[in-house]
Amino acid sequence: MAIEPFDVVDLIHTKRDRGALSTAQIDWMVDAYTRGYIAEEQMAAMTMAIFLNGMERSEIRDLTLAMIASGERMNFDGLSKRTTDKHSTGGVGDKITLPLAPLVASFGVAVPQLSGRGLGHTGGTLDKLESIPGWRASLSNEEFYSQLENVGAVICAAGSGLAPADGKLYSLRDITGTVESIPLIASSIMSKKIAEGTAALVLDVKFGSGAFLQDINRGRELAETMVQLGRDAGVATSALLTNMNVPLGLAIGNANEVRESLEVLAGGGPADVTELTIALAREMLTLAGKPDADVEAALKDGRAMDTWRAMISAQGGDPAAALPVARETHVVTASRSGVLVDQKALPFGIAAWRLGAGRARKQDPVQHAAGIDLHAKPGDTVTEGQPLFTMSADEPERFERALEALEGAYRIGDAGDEVFTGGPLIADRIG
Amino acid sequence: MAIEPFDVVDLIHTKRDRGALSTAQIDWMVDAYTRGYIAEEQMAAMTMAIFLNGMERSEIRDLTLAMIASGERMNFDGLSKRTTDKHSTGGVGDKITLPLAPLVASFGVAVPQLSGRGLGHTGGTLDKLESIPGWRASLSNEEFYSQLENVGAVICAAGSGLAPADGKLYSLRDITGTVESIPLIASSIMSKKIAEGTAALVLDVKFGSGAFLQDINRGRELAETMVQLGRDAGVATSALLTNMNVPLGLAIGNANEVRESLEVLAGGGPADVTELTIALAREMLTLAGKPDADVEAALKDGRAMDTWRAMISAQGGDPAAALPVARETHVVTASRSGVLVDQKALPFGIAAWRLGAGRARKQDPVQHAAGIDLHAKPGDTVTEGQPLFTMSADEPERFERALEALEGAYRIGDAGDEVFTGGPLIADRIG
Repeated sequence: MAIEPFDVVDLIHTKRDRGALSTAQIDWMVDAYTRGYIAEEQMAAMTMAIFLNGMERSEIRDLTLAMIASGERMNFDGLSKRTTDKHSTGGVGDKITLPLAPLVASFGVAVPQLSGRGLGHTGGTLDKLESIPGWRASLSNEEFYSQLENVGAVICAAGSGLAPADGKLYSLRDITGTVESIPLIASSIMSKKIAEGTAALVLDVKFGSGAFLQDINRGRELAETMVQLGRDAGVATSALLTNMNVPLGLAIGNANEVRESLEVLAGGGPADVTELTIALAREMLTLAGKPDADVEAALKDGRAMDTWRAMISAQGGDPAAALPVARETHVVTASRSGVLVDQKALPFGIAAWRLGAGRARKQDPVQHAAGIDLHAKPGDTVTEGQPLFTMSADEPERFERALEALEGAYRIGDAGDEVFTGGPLIADRIG
Repeated sequence: MAIEPFDVVDLIHTKRDRGALSTAQIDWMVDAYTRGYIAEEQMAAMTMAIFLNGMERSEIRDLTLAMIASGERMNFDGLSKRTTDKHSTGGVGDKITLPLAPLVASFGVAVPQLSGRGLGHTGGTLDKLESIPGWRASLSNEEFYSQLENVGAVICAAGSGLAPADGKLYSLRDITGTVESIPLIASSIMSKKIAEGTAALVLDVKFGSGAFLQDINRGRELAETMVQLGRDAGVATSALLTNMNVPLGLAIGNANEVRESLEVLAGGGPADVTELTIALAREMLTLAGKPDADVEAALKDGRAMDTWRAMISAQGGDPAAALPVARETHVVTASRSGVLVDQKALPFGIAAWRLGAGRARKQDPVQHAAGIDLHAKPGDTVTEGQPLFTMSADEPERFERALEALEGAYRIGDAGDEVFTGGPLIADRIG
């Protein structure tokens, strides 16, 4: 039996008592946890101590590097194209990856978008794409590299070989109330993204009621921490700090978010989705050495849509197939005339989740046609009886629980009342 | 399947974010943890949050009551004698229970001393007594009550039916670095003691380098918290706040601590052990309605020793049998002449543990003859070459690791140098 160089209880005491862990201690901790020597309950105590007492920048860097070292690293050196990637910290109605990946790839760069599934009220990119008949999330390594070279855009499931320590730690944090921690979020995201081997990375760091971090200053701290981690690892990294107080776009769900993405790819779509897609595409292309790319033209002239179709077809999907429709719908109308002054992201995310668009447990399936379509956004004038939003679900008994979540989530005021949006969509750029 | 009234992650968030848990939440949490619905890693995150953010007095009371409710309660109403009990928070060389229980019982009161085994550097009363040939720690309920009635003193193993939630939680805290928390220590000790059904309880709350809580003010807070918990539950409770910066007495181990206890019962013994035994006996007898009992007389005239012999015999032990002796000894002598100015409890406790007197894991046996015998105490004049202490072990290779623990643990200075003891043995009385 190998002799372990550290005692895990000593390490917990150090972090509990506001000390800093050394590089050697963090390397050992991540390795010992990955191979099961450190028990889940010991790591749970450690993560709560990290949550409450924080980590120094050097510890966050060490944690990130140790999680990368726990698994494989991908390598895109053999590609003829430069790679550029995007990651969002997650929000309500955030389907940006769908139009963004083909849009950026249409300029001849490679977008290796390894994505996840939704858990809780934030949706997952793979769940959304799986509403397209035939589309599959899993690719072999050969299929993945070939599609990157030939189509440019790939959105697929990340293999379990990348940063397995992070996968294990994330599952633990999820059930132990330690998700919303800057050191833990930053190291989790960046270990996966650095292991993926992208040359450039744009982070969409969300703040507000529908994001993991409500406060803009904590969002900024997270963005700065991640940008520094990326640069330390040789990845060209920047971040946009974006507002998640209001749902993004008009569609919250899976199939309906694909529909909205197609509108954006066709040169239309809701103003906020289009604005954020274009801003992130410019960031990604700038980092990939194409600062002058005319992103709006690629949406208007069909090049982005062509790449979308190629991307979906390459993964077995039929881009022309009809998307699923729910068996039941329930329309909520305006109780009075006035102005919609509030529309809170979090309760709308929870309502869509309860309708079946999300999963409560990892093993649950999602209902691809379930969700919410908004018919008005904050600032819009509404008249009594006008539809405010439509809920879709396969079982009608879900509507009641969704409506409970929406109590107090939206408000109709008078012209001249303050409209709550929490500020502009793109609050800042870091990098 | 029963519907659970709370979500454990919500409760963790509440404590993590410095909120207070309600009575209903704590009742549910302890019950759900005991029956395995709340996982060990979830409880580990909760205990670290409690460790770092504390608990209000009402939460500590609720936690104590919920742990009592997780199991059986004993009842001494059928006894002809009043019951009075003592609990020590644990220290190095702390054998006080051994002379104390028969001393107090010799005055016609019942002392139902349910004790534990040692873990880490603090010894366990049962381990010490098991060095007496034939003595057994486990008694049936009938044997227990009969011995209480006929002998008065019983020192035996606590059944697993008392406060099982505490047993589970203590094992978890032990491996997750959350032992030294006032709310968790107070509720752990008091749930067991209240479930044991004693009418009176004296707490020996230790502070200093060899105790769980180093700081006297934290010791005082723990003592006050426990005295209040006892009184709220109808138990007459008081506490002595005692100094554990220096080992108690001259013997640290198991068999050698029994020998030292016999010296005290014979009217002799080291001054500090005798002082604390007498002070605690007076407290216990006062709470049991005998404030005028002449405790010193019972040590001098052999009544306490008679009760000891009856107590040991009743549990199968031979009070006249020779105690075990270690195969190897190693004497450490004074490197210079002068005054012993420092003798730190914690390293001596760790050294005795490494010699085999304690166990690293619950399932390990202890070596009854292993330990340390001190030949000088702080303030004593020593001459070069004089024995300072003798280490005993069954395997000679243990001496080196014990000596490593003792580096810097003691110091010989000059006459007139300050002698470090950390103040008087009994710092305060609470209650």
